[in-house]
Amino acid sequence: MKIAGKPYRTIWPRGDEAVEVIDQTRLPHEFATLALRAPEDCARAIKTMIVRGAPLIGATAAYGIAFAMRAEPSSKALVAAHDMLLATRPTAVNLRWALKRMHDVLHAASHGERFTLAWREAAAICDEDVEICHSIGVHGLKLFREMAAKKNGAPLNILTHCNAGWLACIDWGTATSPIYQAHDAGIPVHVWVDETRPRNQGASLTAYELGQHGVPHTIIADNAGGHYMQAGRVDLCIVGTDRVTKNGDVANKIGTYLKALAAKDNNVPFYVALPSPTIDWTLASGASIPIEERSADEVLKMTGRLPGGGVATVEIAAPGSPAANPGFDVTPARLVKGFITERGVCAAKEEGLRSLFPE
Amino acid sequence: MKIAGKPYRTIWPRGDEAVEVIDQTRLPHEFATLALRAPEDCARAIKTMIVRGAPLIGATAAYGIAFAMRAEPSSKALVAAHDMLLATRPTAVNLRWALKRMHDVLHAASHGERFTLAWREAAAICDEDVEICHSIGVHGLKLFREMAAKKNGAPLNILTHCNAGWLACIDWGTATSPIYQAHDAGIPVHVWVDETRPRNQGASLTAYELGQHGVPHTIIADNAGGHYMQAGRVDLCIVGTDRVTKNGDVANKIGTYLKALAAKDNNVPFYVALPSPTIDWTLASGASIPIEERSADEVLKMTGRLPGGGVATVEIAAPGSPAANPGFDVTPARLVKGFITERGVCAAKEEGLRSLFPE
Repeated sequence: MKIAGKPYRTIWPRGDEAVEVIDQTRLPHEFATLALRAPEDCARAIKTMIVRGAPLIGATAAYGIAFAMRAEPSSKALVAAHDMLLATRPTAVNLRWALKRMHDVLHAASHGERFTLAWREAAAICDEDVEICHSIGVHGLKLFREMAAKKNGAPLNILTHCNAGWLACIDWGTATSPIYQAHDAGIPVHVWVDETRPRNQGASLTAYELGQHGVPHTIIADNAGGHYMQAGRVDLCIVGTDRVTKNGDVANKIGTYLKALAAKDNNVPFYVALPSPTIDWTLASGASIPIEERSADEVLKMTGRLPGGGVATVEIAAPGSPAANPGFDVTPARLVKGFITERGVCAAKEEGLRSLFPE
Repeated sequence: MKIAGKPYRTIWPRGDEAVEVIDQTRLPHEFATLALRAPEDCARAIKTMIVRGAPLIGATAAYGIAFAMRAEPSSKALVAAHDMLLATRPTAVNLRWALKRMHDVLHAASHGERFTLAWREAAAICDEDVEICHSIGVHGLKLFREMAAKKNGAPLNILTHCNAGWLACIDWGTATSPIYQAHDAGIPVHVWVDETRPRNQGASLTAYELGQHGVPHTIIADNAGGHYMQAGRVDLCIVGTDRVTKNGDVANKIGTYLKALAAKDNNVPFYVALPSPTIDWTLASGASIPIEERSADEVLKMTGRLPGGGVATVEIAAPGSPAANPGFDVTPARLVKGFITERGVCAAKEEGLRSLFPE
């Protein structure tokens, strides 16, 4: 998608020396890109959330494996890079999926061809993600079109949580893909953007990318979505996910569960945009998903632009008070109206998932 | 309660010239007090949230009427001050209640005695609030004691939203009164403090006052409470309220509804600490409560302490993105386990309220 009129992906090769990424920790205050050249660079970028979002994490880890193979194409180095990258974030399943895919391609290959194969595979992971996200948008657009038809020209009000936008993917985004496609097709849409504390990915990333693309939107505190649903001002919710288990439970950014409860209570359909690599067929239910505990500083401090220019981080809470910071929660399948996948829309249960992904 | 070891109320007379209040917009970064001497001072303090919390707003407005009567004890001045003060905040019912009480006492009195009567009545409103809050604590303590007995010495985990602490009242607080009394009685308690975006009254005020009193607590993002309830780490929720309608619907800080939904979904009892002046017997249900729309700046900016000292306000969201900021939501009575009032605990329905307040 575009930033200031220029088309970007979130990760792109610079020759076969490096990959460049957008430094998402500096958005929306500054736009800057960063070159990654080694597996350690990739691990650090994932861990510090320079790159974030399940698909982009997977792609960055894949390039991390490629860099490891350039430095030393041994099986020992392959396993070491795999393990280091896997340890960066515990919740997203795409990371594990991408690393396994790289390992499967490389472990039987000769040392001499490993780097070339790895580089090609990482690029393929990126291109496939773009395809998947685009297809999610095509299927979601059909739904949006039906719902918009009942609104007599009034904008379709869509609530989203966190950033499941193109900045979380390679392009298009998952939850945002139908939004962009609806907007581009001339369907009037308006997005309620949950701020998404504590890291504010909604206010800083989703609002940023919707604004750059010209999609009407309004930032709201995470607390406000339930009220707007009660008031009939939300037509549907759509979010991304970091992991969906076999039974349809959805791990996503902390607070997603609260919005799903409010949607259920107010008969607002709650959709999850789900690229198939995010399905974890090995877990029976969400109860076994590990939930990442992140730094208390994310709750206690906030970064923003000073009135006179420049960016500063301020301490916002009562001095000396401790904080806790679980990164994700699990929304039970019973609260989810449907999954919008690259193969179509299905019910949030095992039969639904198997109907689209029988293999 | 105490700040740095010294006992305070939130509002106290200085002779009969002025009242002093704690400037709550500067907490938790700075502790400062401020003198109010005129009805306009009181209106401004309420509007800009130098004073906030339903009971404290009512008390401040009562002193505003007294200042008006000192300046000019006419009925015209009485009505003018009443209307100006009533217009400051639309949601809290205590404001209307306190202003009506002042008006009822004064309108039949002679001009000569109006100021003295008004000053005395405002002080009585404060003293009665302290009594009410203390009694809420006594009744809540019984409940807490029963629940704590089932925990085999482990701390009772209590989640609260916004600040219904002594800073919102005159002393003790509403939701915090049983917490302080349980803590003082040696019952181990731990409080999950919702940050409460966008004004962060939880992270800045509730955490501050609990910390000053030595009550163990942890600040969490508003998004996190549902996850902790799913994980069995919340034993009960208790919140304050700005207005309860006849049928038991509860207007409170935006986001309360989401926590009540999560409590219901996880069988966590959800209590509302309810001083009787907060009951609005004139409204049949929460659907008719006016919801205050506050400034977008509260969502888009954040104030905190700079690393080098000093306090700064930073812009945190994507530049140019608009925000919306409803201040309150309505929690339906069906989600509330009970009201803890100064006369005891009752069910969240009209019969429950009438059983304690038959008059």
